[in-house]
Amino acid sequence: MAEEKLPTRAEDFAEWYNQLVVRSDMADYAPVRGCMVVKPYGWALWENITSWLDAEFKKTGHVNAAFPTLIPLSFFEKEKEHVEGFAPELAVVTHGGGEELEEKLAVRPTSETIIGHMYAKWIKSWRDLPVLIVQWGSVLRWELRTKLFLRTAEFYWHEGHTAHASAEEALEEMYRILDIYERFCYEEAAIPVIKGTKSETERFAGAHTTTSIEAMMWDKRALQSGTSHYFSTNFSKAFDIQFLNRGNTLQYAETTSWAISSRIIGAIIMVHGDDQGLVLPPRLAPIQAVIVPIFRNDAEKGKVMDVADRVFLELKEAGIRVKMDDRDNVSSGFKFNDWEMRGVPLRVEIGPKDVEKGSVALARRDKPGKEGKTFVSQADLASTVNGLLADVQSSLLKRATDYFNANVHEPKDYEDLKQIVADGWAFAYWCESAECEARVKQDTKATTRNIPLNQPEGEGTCIVCGRPARRKVYFAKAY
Amino acid sequence: MAEEKLPTRAEDFAEWYNQLVVRSDMADYAPVRGCMVVKPYGWALWENITSWLDAEFKKTGHVNAAFPTLIPLSFFEKEKEHVEGFAPELAVVTHGGGEELEEKLAVRPTSETIIGHMYAKWIKSWRDLPVLIVQWGSVLRWELRTKLFLRTAEFYWHEGHTAHASAEEALEEMYRILDIYERFCYEEAAIPVIKGTKSETERFAGAHTTTSIEAMMWDKRALQSGTSHYFSTNFSKAFDIQFLNRGNTLQYAETTSWAISSRIIGAIIMVHGDDQGLVLPPRLAPIQAVIVPIFRNDAEKGKVMDVADRVFLELKEAGIRVKMDDRDNVSSGFKFNDWEMRGVPLRVEIGPKDVEKGSVALARRDKPGKEGKTFVSQADLASTVNGLLADVQSSLLKRATDYFNANVHEPKDYEDLKQIVADGWAFAYWCESAECEARVKQDTKATTRNIPLNQPEGEGTCIVCGRPARRKVYFAKAY
Repeated sequence: MAEEKLPTRAEDFAEWYNQLVVRSDMADYAPVRGCMVVKPYGWALWENITSWLDAEFKKTGHVNAAFPTLIPLSFFEKEKEHVEGFAPELAVVTHGGGEELEEKLAVRPTSETIIGHMYAKWIKSWRDLPVLIVQWGSVLRWELRTKLFLRTAEFYWHEGHTAHASAEEALEEMYRILDIYERFCYEEAAIPVIKGTKSETERFAGAHTTTSIEAMMWDKRALQSGTSHYFSTNFSKAFDIQFLNRGNTLQYAETTSWAISSRIIGAIIMVHGDDQGLVLPPRLAPIQAVIVPIFRNDAEKGKVMDVADRVFLELKEAGIRVKMDDRDNVSSGFKFNDWEMRGVPLRVEIGPKDVEKGSVALARRDKPGKEGKTFVSQADLASTVNGLLADVQSSLLKRATDYFNANVHEPKDYEDLKQIVADGWAFAYWCESAECEARVKQDTKATTRNIPLNQPEGEGTCIVCGRPARRKVYFAKAY
Repeated sequence: MAEEKLPTRAEDFAEWYNQLVVRSDMADYAPVRGCMVVKPYGWALWENITSWLDAEFKKTGHVNAAFPTLIPLSFFEKEKEHVEGFAPELAVVTHGGGEELEEKLAVRPTSETIIGHMYAKWIKSWRDLPVLIVQWGSVLRWELRTKLFLRTAEFYWHEGHTAHASAEEALEEMYRILDIYERFCYEEAAIPVIKGTKSETERFAGAHTTTSIEAMMWDKRALQSGTSHYFSTNFSKAFDIQFLNRGNTLQYAETTSWAISSRIIGAIIMVHGDDQGLVLPPRLAPIQAVIVPIFRNDAEKGKVMDVADRVFLELKEAGIRVKMDDRDNVSSGFKFNDWEMRGVPLRVEIGPKDVEKGSVALARRDKPGKEGKTFVSQADLASTVNGLLADVQSSLLKRATDYFNANVHEPKDYEDLKQIVADGWAFAYWCESAECEARVKQDTKATTRNIPLNQPEGEGTCIVCGRPARRKVYFAKAY
């Protein structure tokens, strides 16, 4: 742990990431190709993420439920685009209970099909609508090149599936969820994101409209961090979800689906992490403050531990997620490095001099060295710590926002766009043709990220072909 | 919903159960053989169960993590008894990403093997112990005869997996968890259970010792409602989980595993349910109190709804899980039946006369008809309701305990035992031989449930063979 230095981000960002995820104790490689083990420290972070989202979904009238992990292969055939999108990625169960199955089953890659099947059974009248169900769990999409959290065969997520009586209500739902995702990123993850609509090429298989939130990583590549889809009646026609409307006429329901996955942990790592390791936003950090007692002999130890134990209880009672590091087999320096690697937002150091002076030293993770260190009174420490945690949270968001703004550019012309996307994001008018999009991808490897909902007034000309264009789009290389 | 009468429990208990689960909106049959869909109402109950257990596990130092859903088939071969127990029940993935796999994968039926593999990698020194990890999720054991919650191919659970430096600590853990399970049943589910050790025949595949909690259903059959296993070094030898102990010598870790599954919902239904439907213990009920406003015209409606809305807010603010049933397309009688079917512990009726008198009518679910109905003042209603909910909770436990006691008998001789287990549980000395156990099963279909930890003083003679016996056991027919 934390003994050898990480490669710096500038030296080798991919290797920095791979080592960091394992050395910070977030996750490990599983003995199943393409899969990961999320270790307790990583899972505690995921629980903080999920409990915020779950509470927001419940506030807006959503309920949770559970559908089978295995889905008959024939279900995928019912929506043409959906099967084309997912068939190549399926893991297929062919044997059960020692016998070959007549109907083969896929481990779910996403659950529109089986949930659509059940909705057709449950929804009969306009009085049954809306149906607002969320499923928490994991899904599997065959993938052999593992990158922990970012690209694994099995990953963790929630999938919301809703059915509505009108297109208007379904679209409202799609945007309501996108707003919750945006608020999560800003308020909890301290990550600025762009809310927008995906191009046709980048749309979810079977969707009428796909919206996303997109974030910029430290290496300036984009990460799609959440998606919210409107299906129109595509799935309700495929699965026959019909209801009697107020006029007593049979009508197809309008449906949506949406998700944030454990990929978001990859975003948190790649946005905030530094060359010493992870930097976790205080609102999500499993450990918000770690106490490191410092002493050289038993006499000092007694005095220091008295204060450290008292401080521990005081912070804990104030609702701060605090940890005491009283390991006796490693040095204080080792502990400092170890908790920096794990991204704990605040370190509380207590030594013999602090005991005498009634003080403690606080070291904030987001500002390394002397700049981030303050010496404060033990009196009213919980409120000092809470204030500092709030400051770390807002500083992380500000730093990430400044970084985003500094690395988005508006290209003058196509040549300029090519230069920009080599090391940043380009924001430009685009005619929304697949041809222009493909040309950019071919020339630069950058793709359209999304067409932001907030658009400037007026119109322009496509940065690729020069034809008239109504809306601007972000181009960037992406994970 | 709730229009046709259920069959009574006495008429056809199995059919009563099957209809009740679906009509109370807890679960539905999935279009995948052997699988179920847990509907929002059932899942909300499961969330109340899991959140209590999760909090208790965390209080006792456990942490959550996630391991892959798919496990290489070869892993099962490593522990001989384990593979014999589970191989016939596996669902097997043979194809992924369009190609046949070299190494076939099982959808996990339980995770001892893959977690053991990871523990071997993580555990190096006594300082790494104990490891106390819980995984929440679902597992799959091939099963074609579905009985919702009780017997489905896929079911929901937590599985705890712990590793310790000594047998003593591992055994302590096994019993600590069994105690948590027992407290859960008494305090939350209002179900009396017997804590004890399973016979060798009934032991978990690969375990050294299996303990369980056993509950009596309304039809007097037993339901194993939770298990806690001690593996000794069986799995650590199979997976090479070794650590350097304090004496600097390599030693195998001692491991445990334990689980309560969504089967417990079946127990709650079959212990408390009555001929009108579900009866949920207030501490776990997704809806603790339902308000039914009663009026015949718009003038009455206005006055009644004013009071109903105020009462709703008052109860909600007091932390009571309350629901307003303001449906305008069904009668009050229909609503009463509907909420009785769903087992809501308390109904709050508010009509025009209540508005005049400043009263409401409270109907408790556990006592049907007039006996369970009281008319109380609107003043301080939240505290009245909370008091009544606590009373319903303790009444349910008392009723179930009385029922248990009335249906357990101590047989005089083997003939008496045969009569008792035809419609109850027998509690008798047993020599602990597999032969006597098999004879009882053959003659009566009853099995040994468990050897309770609390044993009477002294010794006796085996009820089957008459040889000396040290401990008493429960015999009963079981689900």
